[in-house]
Amino acid sequence: MPSPSRSVSAPSDIARGHAAKRLAALATPPGALGRLGELGVWVAACQGQVPPVPLDEVRLVIFAGDHGVAGHGVSAFPPAITGAMVRTFLAGRAGVSALAAAHGVRVRVLDLGVDDDFADLPDDVRARLTAHKVCRASGAIHLEDALTAAETEAALAAGAQVAREEIAAGGQLLLSGDMGIGNTTPAAAIVAAGLGLPASEVVGRGTGIDDTTLTHKAAVVDAALKRAGARADDPVETLAALGSADLAAATGYLLAAAQDGVPVLLDGLMSVACALTADRIEPGAAQWFAAGHRSTEPAQSLALSKMGLTPVLDLDLRLGEGSGAVAAVPVVRSAVAVLRDVALLSEL
Amino acid sequence: MPSPSRSVSAPSDIARGHAAKRLAALATPPGALGRLGELGVWVAACQGQVPPVPLDEVRLVIFAGDHGVAGHGVSAFPPAITGAMVRTFLAGRAGVSALAAAHGVRVRVLDLGVDDDFADLPDDVRARLTAHKVCRASGAIHLEDALTAAETEAALAAGAQVAREEIAAGGQLLLSGDMGIGNTTPAAAIVAAGLGLPASEVVGRGTGIDDTTLTHKAAVVDAALKRAGARADDPVETLAALGSADLAAATGYLLAAAQDGVPVLLDGLMSVACALTADRIEPGAAQWFAAGHRSTEPAQSLALSKMGLTPVLDLDLRLGEGSGAVAAVPVVRSAVAVLRDVALLSEL
Repeated sequence: MPSPSRSVSAPSDIARGHAAKRLAALATPPGALGRLGELGVWVAACQGQVPPVPLDEVRLVIFAGDHGVAGHGVSAFPPAITGAMVRTFLAGRAGVSALAAAHGVRVRVLDLGVDDDFADLPDDVRARLTAHKVCRASGAIHLEDALTAAETEAALAAGAQVAREEIAAGGQLLLSGDMGIGNTTPAAAIVAAGLGLPASEVVGRGTGIDDTTLTHKAAVVDAALKRAGARADDPVETLAALGSADLAAATGYLLAAAQDGVPVLLDGLMSVACALTADRIEPGAAQWFAAGHRSTEPAQSLALSKMGLTPVLDLDLRLGEGSGAVAAVPVVRSAVAVLRDVALLSEL
Repeated sequence: MPSPSRSVSAPSDIARGHAAKRLAALATPPGALGRLGELGVWVAACQGQVPPVPLDEVRLVIFAGDHGVAGHGVSAFPPAITGAMVRTFLAGRAGVSALAAAHGVRVRVLDLGVDDDFADLPDDVRARLTAHKVCRASGAIHLEDALTAAETEAALAAGAQVAREEIAAGGQLLLSGDMGIGNTTPAAAIVAAGLGLPASEVVGRGTGIDDTTLTHKAAVVDAALKRAGARADDPVETLAALGSADLAAATGYLLAAAQDGVPVLLDGLMSVACALTADRIEPGAAQWFAAGHRSTEPAQSLALSKMGLTPVLDLDLRLGEGSGAVAAVPVVRSAVAVLRDVALLSEL
């Protein structure tokens, strides 16, 4: 689990200062590099070195799980799709697989709470996939808690362990992705809890629900928030009451990255809801996060604003899976390249 | 020169139709790929094949030239910077060089009208750089024509020849970049001429001029438009009266790409002003163009709107050089990757 004793340090102010000086000294007009300049300085501050080193090792972990609410009319797709998509990730044929292959990003998929035993998979593949499995579908949050306290702690700890494994294996930039039919409902609820907003402001159309379903989804989130009551004031209680195994694990993963001083490029709503929760658990964690893309979910933009993050890309993506983060990786690499490889004016 | 006899065909409607069908049949929710889906379909239509082939060979040509107006207080930098930056491109140390190296884009720099003889360069390098040189600085457009008719034709022909060389060498996607102190002034004038707008609506701060200089710059563009009069109704006359050797060459390059059916990813104001002019010369040319990034210059956004193009990136870049187009290349590659490599629902 994320150790309460390992609090989050800030990225290096000294490196940030040196990086900003280097940026100003490049053979480019002041400010001409725009957001690439800012992102390059952020990477340097996270790495604690100037110029920053290239981000060759970028690692995405996809946290998969099912959600009790998916059986209550909040999604355009049936829950069985979750397991089918996990198999598609393993086969390297999903949207995020194509993007990751194109941009040299490693992908790991973990089943935290998929309602499927994956008995058809080879033993070694299944063992790796389900090593941290917490449950088969999290509770329907408008009716019951998503997780017990023990399950929540187990999921947080699993995410932290996975982050540390990816960092130990060389990960220089971590991404989190998601798969789980119905997952925008608990994610929106977590954001509402974190920001003190009503359900009506946070719910979106997910993979494409109609107006009637959207109204129902808002009612589900509203009921969940009422059921959770004051427990929503505590971020870990929020995960237990309103979240899911996959969301708790992603939160532990993002928190561990921040604790260990490794930068993170966030994806869409699920990734950002977990980032917000990580920042609630350890204020300051968000300093280690950058926003990969703007999703079409309102809760994602609200949570990013709260953390002071502006997305790198805005491509109307609503695929999930970590796809927006992977698509944004080359922009972060561009930022590193300019700060690292452009001549200084003094060298000309 | 771009042959009037070689009119521009449209990208393949048949391939576009097949690509749209393939997009809809992917194992992703309808519309979930957002702009990546649209871009992938556009590439497939340009290539005339589905799925599209990966864009391994992306080629940037930087058109360099000086501008008489640079001696009349429209820029934050002195004209001598143009030659210095050409040398920085040749050394591979400019902003665009770093981006191109990071993303596997080939860069070629051409001197069309730099006020420098580059006598310090090795003979072979200088010969290649200046092979298409038309003049040493184009005329100050508020006082005189930028180019003679013969110079304009020579520059258009040079750009077309260079495009065909890059295509013959395997180029699958062409980009155009620019270098030339003062170049946002003629580029804004060309856009104003093309769209029938007053100077006040098109001028921007270029590499970072103050309010007083901005007002003066608008007056220069206004005087140039008045001087050109009805000649601005003709796109080639517009290049002669209001443009420059580098802008005319870039226009010929973009037009030849469209004539030869090779897609182009546009950069900032100079690239987009030339794209607009190419589309005026051969209506329909813009169907071969996509917009790489939104620059901070108002004329760029106005010209993109006219062509119906929406930028892929919006990173507050105002570096020029082709940098915004190069930074957007990985997004176009992402678009190709998803349309090409994601499983079809029918395959699962």
